Amino acid sequence: MPAVVIDGRRISDEIKAELQVEVARLRQEGIVPGLAAVLVGDDPASALYVKMKAQACDKIGVFSDVIKKDNNSSLQEVLDLVMQLNGRDDIDGILVQSPLPRQIDEAAVTRAIEPSKDVDGFHPFNQGLLLAGRPLFEPATPLGIIELLNRSGNSPSGKHVVVLGRGFLVGKPLAAMLSVKSEYANATVTLCHTGTRDIAAHTRRADIVVAAMGRPRFLTGDMVKPGAVVIDVGTNEIIDPAHPKGKRVVGDVDFDSVKEVAGAITPVPGGVGPMTIAALLKNTVKACKLRHENR
Amino acid sequence: MPAVVIDGRRISDEIKAELQVEVARLRQEGIVPGLAAVLVGDDPASALYVKMKAQACDKIGVFSDVIKKDNNSSLQEVLDLVMQLNGRDDIDGILVQSPLPRQIDEAAVTRAIEPSKDVDGFHPFNQGLLLAGRPLFEPATPLGIIELLNRSGNSPSGKHVVVLGRGFLVGKPLAAMLSVKSEYANATVTLCHTGTRDIAAHTRRADIVVAAMGRPRFLTGDMVKPGAVVIDVGTNEIIDPAHPKGKRVVGDVDFDSVKEVAGAITPVPGGVGPMTIAALLKNTVKACKLRHENR
Repeated sequence: MPAVVIDGRRISDEIKAELQVEVARLRQEGIVPGLAAVLVGDDPASALYVKMKAQACDKIGVFSDVIKKDNNSSLQEVLDLVMQLNGRDDIDGILVQSPLPRQIDEAAVTRAIEPSKDVDGFHPFNQGLLLAGRPLFEPATPLGIIELLNRSGNSPSGKHVVVLGRGFLVGKPLAAMLSVKSEYANATVTLCHTGTRDIAAHTRRADIVVAAMGRPRFLTGDMVKPGAVVIDVGTNEIIDPAHPKGKRVVGDVDFDSVKEVAGAITPVPGGVGPMTIAALLKNTVKACKLRHENR
Repeated sequence: MPAVVIDGRRISDEIKAELQVEVARLRQEGIVPGLAAVLVGDDPASALYVKMKAQACDKIGVFSDVIKKDNNSSLQEVLDLVMQLNGRDDIDGILVQSPLPRQIDEAAVTRAIEPSKDVDGFHPFNQGLLLAGRPLFEPATPLGIIELLNRSGNSPSGKHVVVLGRGFLVGKPLAAMLSVKSEYANATVTLCHTGTRDIAAHTRRADIVVAAMGRPRFLTGDMVKPGAVVIDVGTNEIIDPAHPKGKRVVGDVDFDSVKEVAGAITPVPGGVGPMTIAALLKNTVKACKLRHENR
């Protein structure tokens, strides 16, 4: 029996609908959550992501301010902008779209964001709270994955999860988050990476596999335990002459072979991707509520 | 063939001897590394730990200042002291001995320490750098364990390490540190805890087991793969009428049964314990060097 396909768009819509209700309630009190999105340079993919995030804000009643900076902006100019956003009362969350142009030290920009407005969760202070199991903001993609698991009836609690990839954006924080003693996590996590000797030996034992290493269709059906849940975080562009555009996006999972073995699987696109935006919105509304509670 | 017993005292002495040479060199430049140890209250175990740390400083030429505060000190008094130490030029590292009296919010004290003097590595900012794989100061016990593995000829690189216990002091940071892509780490790590269904199934597959859950003699010989390396972080006081004091300290590992199966094992005491102090000294000397380089 082929795997159940987990619908990330539907679950993401569910979260957005919940947030919309919360935002409406806040607005009745005269509070409007606000997100500032900083876009430096003219990378078309970055521009698209920022646009999608702003549209998602609009849809649920969150104010969004997209601020574009020139491709040759200096580090100081971007830091000045961030400091200004830190001080703005109408802005609860600040995101600086990655990647930044070469001349800009991304870590320095991240550290300039006031931790209470760091809705991307990448400030070292927030990463530290995450590791300590008392997070303020959890990074969007791992948070989206944990929501996806819980809301699709695949609670990770008590399960053995194998995470593939030790990246800063997904693998590392996800492993820490899944290990936390909470009803939404509480998993036994194995973190595999390029230094792992026999990845298949690990994945074959896993109840849940999360593939986040950026290698197209790496995880194949023979590497998965029958009935396991497989989450695909990859977005790899591959050449495909058969496709109208000559190329298409595939995940880190070989969908066709894995879906014959797994119990549940996320598609690419339409799996983890939409969850990331929902998680960002969730953090923004949280930031707004915390800022107003602490007054 | 019974396991090789890893001598933590010898390896700790080796590190201290190296640090002593480094400190002598710094002193020739007129630089004396300094550690401030804050002891609040009259817990005898805490007093002993602080005394051991100060003595270890003395021995390698590091200046130490032990500052004692009354058991009923207020949070504000302790914060004021920390702020004062942050500003002192003769102090490179600050440690506040745990546990603190009830009325003092330990997290608030940790956050008050200037991250560049946080040689215990527990400030959220430093924990965040740790998770991101670009650490400034690594917490002493996990750092000591990684030194112990590498210096005893049991490099974790490419190995499967099972860590038992998801505590803030050892398990969680150690799992993150062992996963980093570096010649000293680069391990595939599984983090087990009270939420893990079958701990023995995990430990039996491990090349290295680190037991850090605080359960006396939990890990027994039948739970270990022949030839595995076993690191015991536990220090549990148990009643023992046969002992002159009526009690003694045992680890999380059942030494007698495990040593018949494992390839190498650390004793308690004399294994991880001494490494923790060596790691603290290492961080203090590092803090001193960084502070003088950045001038």
